[in-house]
Amino acid sequence: MMSEIEQRLQELGVTLPTRWHLPSGTLTGSILVRVQGDRVFVGGHVPLDQDGRVCGPFGKVGAQVSLEQAQEAARRAMLGMLASLKAELGNLDRIGSWLRLGGLVNTAPTFNEYPRVLNAASKLLVDVFGEQRGSHARLAIGIAGLPWDVPVEIEAEVTLATSV
Amino acid sequence: MMSEIEQRLQELGVTLPTRWHLPSGTLTGSILVRVQGDRVFVGGHVPLDQDGRVCGPFGKVGAQVSLEQAQEAARRAMLGMLASLKAELGNLDRIGSWLRLGGLVNTAPTFNEYPRVLNAASKLLVDVFGEQRGSHARLAIGIAGLPWDVPVEIEAEVTLATSV
Amino acid sequence: MMSEIEQRLQELGVTLPTRWHLPSGTLTGSILVRVQGDRVFVGGHVPLDQDGRVCGPFGKVGAQVSLEQAQEAARRAMLGMLASLKAELGNLDRIGSWLRLGGLVNTAPTFNEYPRVLNAASKLLVDVFGEQRGSHARLAIGIAGLPWDVPVEIEAEVTLATSV
Repeated sequence: MMSEIEQRLQELGVTLPTRWHLPSGTLTGSILVRVQGDRVFVGGHVPLDQDGRVCGPFGKVGAQVSLEQAQEAARRAMLGMLASLKAELGNLDRIGSWLRLGGLVNTAPTFNEYPRVLNAASKLLVDVFGEQRGSHARLAIGIAGLPWDVPVEIEAEVTLATSV
Repeated sequence: MMSEIEQRLQELGVTLPTRWHLPSGTLTGSILVRVQGDRVFVGGHVPLDQDGRVCGPFGKVGAQVSLEQAQEAARRAMLGMLASLKAELGNLDRIGSWLRLGGLVNTAPTFNEYPRVLNAASKLLVDVFGEQRGSHARLAIGIAGLPWDVPVEIEAEVTLATSV
Repeated sequence: MMSEIEQRLQELGVTLPTRWHLPSGTLTGSILVRVQGDRVFVGGHVPLDQDGRVCGPFGKVGAQVSLEQAQEAARRAMLGMLASLKAELGNLDRIGSWLRLGGLVNTAPTFNEYPRVLNAASKLLVDVFGEQRGSHARLAIGIAGLPWDVPVEIEAEVTLATSV
């Protein structure tokens, strides 16, 4: 039987990328998903292509990267995050609630529409998990620099469902 | 009977603003307060006027905005956060403990007194909730940009009291 | 009997600094370590010398501060964090799991190797606590400014062991 969330992704025409391909030595000691009891911490995720590799466009939002491109980058970062969660949890139906999303925008000095950038990631969550499970508290801020000069990075905390 | 915390606010001469008036479409998918069991995540809050609207002064702390103005902005952001919590929880007495406060200062290159800015928000918490409930771990950092070009933004995690 | 973690630190030739010497008034309302049930929030920690005082080199990583110096700063910030945890918990063996590490690099415009900077702190955790307890989700980003113009700051969330 197909998982409920996977079916929902299919209905939305969304395909998860391959799990993030991390070049050896990128992360030492830290891991992409940390599970402890029913608590799940997801480390920083950046935009990935379908093969799970960090992808462009690169640069500052408001300069080299447009608002629309940044929204697509936020969406891709979220799909990569879902791929990491699926790899770690086995089944995305195990996610009970999204709690917090931290959203970081690699910003040009003149840009400040960070909520509009992150809305692309947040909307995907609500579209896929529904409002009750997918709604979350959020931070959306402008940052001086992100690894690989990606335009957007996100981190999250979720809880596991009591039973699935 | 008046809530204990409301009474304390009154003693301090503090009036909470109207709940944040968010123009439609500002946040999609994300919500200001996320409650899950006894855990409460509060998303990014910015300075509000008494009518619950984002207010100035706007700009970088250390340039367009002075230290004193930034402290007042931090205090206003915290009052807006309390207004959101009251709207969501019904009664601020339900807050058991403040755990973490994230404080972000929209910074000019020459400014770095971020703890002094955030002290205005942290002190308010301890004045209102007392040291045992109000003390919290904190991050106070300089940020390249904040939405609407506000000088300060805060996010938080709190827990609900076991019973009130 | 020496604590297991203290013994491990000794084996690694690591000496914790004196607990952070905070000049009066630096933090108002916020505290370095917030314990609530089995949850422990650790506020922002910066590089300390062995006497527990904020130490240099100061400035932006990629300009005044080199990658190698930033890695040493990240390591020192982590040792200061362990000193705060030891002071608060009495015994570092009480730490059950590291959950999340937030890593902030005071960045020059041309620098973006934030994961390499933070790896120095993350590796120390895994060396000391082992992979199962020490691995953590992480954020490693570039920041416009940090207090005292330090090059690196970290914050964390950990859980207490069920019983020690």
